[in-house]
Amino acid sequence: MLEERIDELKEKLLFMASLVEQMIGKSTESLVERDEEPARQVIEVDEPRVNKLEIEIDEMSISILALFQPKASHLRLVTMMMKINNDLERLGDHAVNIAERAIALIAEPPVKPLIDIPRMADIAAQMVRDSLNSFTNSDSNLAADVRARDELVDGLRDQITRELVTYMLSDPSTIEQALELILITRDLERIADLATNIAEDVIFAVKGEIVKHSW
Amino acid sequence: MLEERIDELKEKLLFMASLVEQMIGKSTESLVERDEEPARQVIEVDEPRVNKLEIEIDEMSISILALFQPKASHLRLVTMMMKINNDLERLGDHAVNIAERAIALIAEPPVKPLIDIPRMADIAAQMVRDSLNSFTNSDSNLAADVRARDELVDGLRDQITRELVTYMLSDPSTIEQALELILITRDLERIADLATNIAEDVIFAVKGEIVKHSW
Repeated sequence: MLEERIDELKEKLLFMASLVEQMIGKSTESLVERDEEPARQVIEVDEPRVNKLEIEIDEMSISILALFQPKASHLRLVTMMMKINNDLERLGDHAVNIAERAIALIAEPPVKPLIDIPRMADIAAQMVRDSLNSFTNSDSNLAADVRARDELVDGLRDQITRELVTYMLSDPSTIEQALELILITRDLERIADLATNIAEDVIFAVKGEIVKHSW
Repeated sequence: MLEERIDELKEKLLFMASLVEQMIGKSTESLVERDEEPARQVIEVDEPRVNKLEIEIDEMSISILALFQPKASHLRLVTMMMKINNDLERLGDHAVNIAERAIALIAEPPVKPLIDIPRMADIAAQMVRDSLNSFTNSDSNLAADVRARDELVDGLRDQITRELVTYMLSDPSTIEQALELILITRDLERIADLATNIAEDVIFAVKGEIVKHSW
């Protein structure tokens, strides 16, 4: 019974994670395709769903703790899902920020073709997915790999920023748009950071033999 | 016994919150006073302490859940402290971001006197403090007040950004420095958002009669 309830909880958490991942994809799509629709969906449909899921997952977790009083590894599993739940909600906030910036940017002619930002977004979204996969499979190698990709994201952030600052310097009419794009890289960076936090929790749990392969 | 352990946990959480609040203050001080020392402390001394406290608070919470199997309001109290713990660690990350930017900015002559950024930082730090106070006192009025201040912070962010963009446009040599200052306002905004999240959790808990005045 306890394990069934834990599986339900895990399923809901994975569903929430996939929703957040889609939100990152949709807001980037809006930016690249210059189409407001996906960004609107993120703001109007997905974000309220994520907020609702956060409350549901918290309530399910608390009810499992109250009903089954799990011990040892089950207890740690439930509390870890509560932490990941919290992080996923914060991740959703950043996807919303990107969606809002995308809508603002669509109104203006583009400064330059966007190539590196979608690449950065793909990596960040994949980090979210893999951090969750590392959790569900107690896979500390995958978690370590997520952590390693954080540097790649930071490198892209610096490279994109340098390039956009060059645009700003050579043509001040691009300043406001380039600034919005730089701010988008900061939301993507924070998304990657949060995925890295999840991955680090997984590594800590697996190393402490807290995470059991039987999950 | 359970209540004693919960009080210890609450005390540690409040200590962590005051540390995070000081980190925001110190990194802003570095920026304003053009003195690297407080920012270095944030990065080298405070951040590792916050990370250690996060783990300790998680472990204390899990051990309370395992030993006492608390029910109802006590259970919710412990899980809520775990959530706040998670948010405080994320708040520490943003203070570190500001500290790093302050150190970079000190190397350059200042673009303009900083008045609004320290004001924004004061409000954000106070929001962190009050969100924790609203939690410990189950004070939903104070929590609502924290939430209301989030708009003030967003207003300051927009005002500071507009002003700095004007600097960038009129003198491109200020672009890089103004950009760093704009990025600092984004970290402060995110600090205010996280304090607002905590306050909203408090409101939800108090309204649901989950939070008891006897805490």
